[in-house]
Amino acid sequence: MLKHKKLAIYPGTFDPITNGHLDIIYRAASLFDTVIVAVTTNPAKQPLFSAEERVQMIREAITDLSNVAIESFDGLLMHYATAKKADVIVRGLRAITDFEFEMQMALVNRKLAENIVTVFLMPNEKYTYLNSTIVKEIARFKGDVSLFVPREVNRILIEKFKNV
Amino acid sequence: MLKHKKLAIYPGTFDPITNGHLDIIYRAASLFDTVIVAVTTNPAKQPLFSAEERVQMIREAITDLSNVAIESFDGLLMHYATAKKADVIVRGLRAITDFEFEMQMALVNRKLAENIVTVFLMPNEKYTYLNSTIVKEIARFKGDVSLFVPREVNRILIEKFKNV
Amino acid sequence: MLKHKKLAIYPGTFDPITNGHLDIIYRAASLFDTVIVAVTTNPAKQPLFSAEERVQMIREAITDLSNVAIESFDGLLMHYATAKKADVIVRGLRAITDFEFEMQMALVNRKLAENIVTVFLMPNEKYTYLNSTIVKEIARFKGDVSLFVPREVNRILIEKFKNV
Amino acid sequence: MLKHKKLAIYPGTFDPITNGHLDIIYRAASLFDTVIVAVTTNPAKQPLFSAEERVQMIREAITDLSNVAIESFDGLLMHYATAKKADVIVRGLRAITDFEFEMQMALVNRKLAENIVTVFLMPNEKYTYLNSTIVKEIARFKGDVSLFVPREVNRILIEKFKNV
Amino acid sequence: MLKHKKLAIYPGTFDPITNGHLDIIYRAASLFDTVIVAVTTNPAKQPLFSAEERVQMIREAITDLSNVAIESFDGLLMHYATAKKADVIVRGLRAITDFEFEMQMALVNRKLAENIVTVFLMPNEKYTYLNSTIVKEIARFKGDVSLFVPREVNRILIEKFKNV
Amino acid sequence: MLKHKKLAIYPGTFDPITNGHLDIIYRAASLFDTVIVAVTTNPAKQPLFSAEERVQMIREAITDLSNVAIESFDGLLMHYATAKKADVIVRGLRAITDFEFEMQMALVNRKLAENIVTVFLMPNEKYTYLNSTIVKEIARFKGDVSLFVPREVNRILIEKFKNV
Repeated sequence: MLKHKKLAIYPGTFDPITNGHLDIIYRAASLFDTVIVAVTTNPAKQPLFSAEERVQMIREAITDLSNVAIESFDGLLMHYATAKKADVIVRGLRAITDFEFEMQMALVNRKLAENIVTVFLMPNEKYTYLNSTIVKEIARFKGDVSLFVPREVNRILIEKFKNV
Repeated sequence: MLKHKKLAIYPGTFDPITNGHLDIIYRAASLFDTVIVAVTTNPAKQPLFSAEERVQMIREAITDLSNVAIESFDGLLMHYATAKKADVIVRGLRAITDFEFEMQMALVNRKLAENIVTVFLMPNEKYTYLNSTIVKEIARFKGDVSLFVPREVNRILIEKFKNV
Repeated sequence: MLKHKKLAIYPGTFDPITNGHLDIIYRAASLFDTVIVAVTTNPAKQPLFSAEERVQMIREAITDLSNVAIESFDGLLMHYATAKKADVIVRGLRAITDFEFEMQMALVNRKLAENIVTVFLMPNEKYTYLNSTIVKEIARFKGDVSLFVPREVNRILIEKFKNV
Repeated sequence: MLKHKKLAIYPGTFDPITNGHLDIIYRAASLFDTVIVAVTTNPAKQPLFSAEERVQMIREAITDLSNVAIESFDGLLMHYATAKKADVIVRGLRAITDFEFEMQMALVNRKLAENIVTVFLMPNEKYTYLNSTIVKEIARFKGDVSLFVPREVNRILIEKFKNV
Repeated sequence: MLKHKKLAIYPGTFDPITNGHLDIIYRAASLFDTVIVAVTTNPAKQPLFSAEERVQMIREAITDLSNVAIESFDGLLMHYATAKKADVIVRGLRAITDFEFEMQMALVNRKLAENIVTVFLMPNEKYTYLNSTIVKEIARFKGDVSLFVPREVNRILIEKFKNV
Repeated sequence: MLKHKKLAIYPGTFDPITNGHLDIIYRAASLFDTVIVAVTTNPAKQPLFSAEERVQMIREAITDLSNVAIESFDGLLMHYATAKKADVIVRGLRAITDFEFEMQMALVNRKLAENIVTVFLMPNEKYTYLNSTIVKEIARFKGDVSLFVPREVNRILIEKFKNV
């Protein structure tokens, strides 16, 4: 018997959300009682979209999931996760270079908050080689990214780059 | 709100169980309502210990976990998992070569039973480079494996190889 | 201007052929004038199917390709390729562990016959994690492999393992 | 029988061309009817040399290959390749980190133009660990890069950094 | 019989030194007659600490090692190592991505000074996933890095970021 | 000042020794006062050559190195190394799959004898993709391995397989 409902946090920059991220959100939502998709504001990385825009794009992509919330946060993930009383950090794993970075973060995060378990999920193999950077690169040059992102994100990317 | 309690299966050969496996069992038991540690009989691999011995060694190592059961099975993991109505397959991830094999198995397993989610957990970094084969190799040559396996497994390995 | 038509050899054990292999054969056939799918007899590996059966299964799977021949050979690949006056060795690349082994083979093969170029093709990402060993393992336990192999191979695998 | 002559594009930043790139160009030129070495202008990456300088350095290094053209392009590779009616994208593979990035690009590029096949070639193992960034880093500090780049590129690098 | 005492150089940015670096310094100091910890000034990378501060932090962390010197240098490592008449370059190896970069540097460095041998040491597995970048990221957000760096470095990091 | 001369052990199966192994022996002999090339008898692996033959082939390949001894041993490497009062275990690193296995062995060996340091050396990139298994495979099929092994080993391999 488990003492309480499980709260999972799925953190990321989501600049913008892709179908690969969506795939992970759906899997996480089927496993845990509540999932918070947590958008890091991360101004140092100079994201293309503001945190508010990124939150809004996720919101429009997952209207059918009742146990998923979307928030933005700044500062250290594990401070945020501790404040939320999270049980789980969810991360997607696609490739070897992901794997090493994720192992590093998971081990460091465990030192910072040892009761929060990092759980790795694997997206559909269709999304193995998909990431936000490549999506933006293609969209910037007017390439078609409609296979890679939710419909509304596609519309926003076209708008964003139409005068570039 | 999730419709039912989550049942996770942690499959493996466990020939014998190591401290790295134990670490994963404890993490899985904290995340899911029930965890079945499922020992593959796997006669083709010619394990050192019988399935019964392997089950028994695990049982002695985790007497304090009330939501963990130990079973053996033969045949295909996803048939077994479907029969058990499992929600989750748990796997430990330590190294890159693990990662590729595990990705392969997870993708194939998803084709065989698409509602069962494979979840990867990372053991403590102390166990990053630990596996059953290396433990047996050291024990066979009378090396000390007491840091790597539960106490009772250590005793059994010494006994097993004392006349080699 | 190139002096002659290009002959490519796609070597492998093909025990049995999978949809991932088929995908590579179609790509190679679109690039080179002639492609020989070359089945290594490889008795040391104790294949499940005889070389004749393996050749036959490939033949049935690719009846629509007029520039592809299927043969079996024993001995060293580069002796065979030299005898055939091949220009190209084709290999599929799916994963990192593949990559290292393939690099090794390609470099050694280049030492043995330096004018024959090894060319790597990437199968559809659907087949990233597919191989013959895993297909046989699933079929042995009566799992469904119809998504992974050509129709006729599926029928033969079911027949092969029906009394196991 | 293949319907038409094969046109291959070998894209890259070539800032500057190294002996490893040259090795790939020679292999590609032996396999395909025409090879276009396509220099991405890529102003966002702030290359050391202008696109014109990079094209010129390649031109001087491969005067003996009659079926190779050199061009620069901007925008999306697959738009350029489609406009050229290319059959093949050629890429060199040296290391694991290359491999993952190249797989990603190849899969995305296939979505953008599915009839163009990405082909990977392996340079001589002498060039396994060579890239333009490391060459520039060494040249900047007056280290000798004459083993790593064509003679004329060496001269230009010395000139470029003589007053740094 | 070896002709002379062995001088090893352990180069790095050390921005700041971590417990993982310290671990490598202790191992190197037990193997070679003299070890120089060589801090690259590297202004292009915009380090958080000046070269003098980085040297000073290392000095305070290793007061008990009599055969270790600390210096800073600019320019090319192999020029510096040749001027010092070094026999050995020491590098730590933690992860696969390290491994590829280190292989590349070692092979290039061998071309530049072929009598100097690069030797790789492995830190304690506790430090497998530790690096200076992650330490700074955590410290910047007021996370606790006392497990990851020497005591004095911890104090300096807290001071550095207290008003951020 | 270091208290005593350094003794290094370079363990392996050496079935048979290749030019890649030789390259590591030369580098180790330049770094440490004494190097013992330690041949594991390893009957479980069913080597092609007896331990005596393998020792003899190494002996003939390195007659010019006065600080290198060759021995065979059975049992656990770290027991042997402790009995020899070794300071260092030398291992060659060529590829990623090597790297993971070697990390595993080094970490386990450190637990078994913590004062013995494992040191990794990198062979010339010519030997990056060379190993004994591939050499035997080629020789078995009468391929030319004279570029890969010492002259005497080449002669013995030809003799060994002449009637296969």
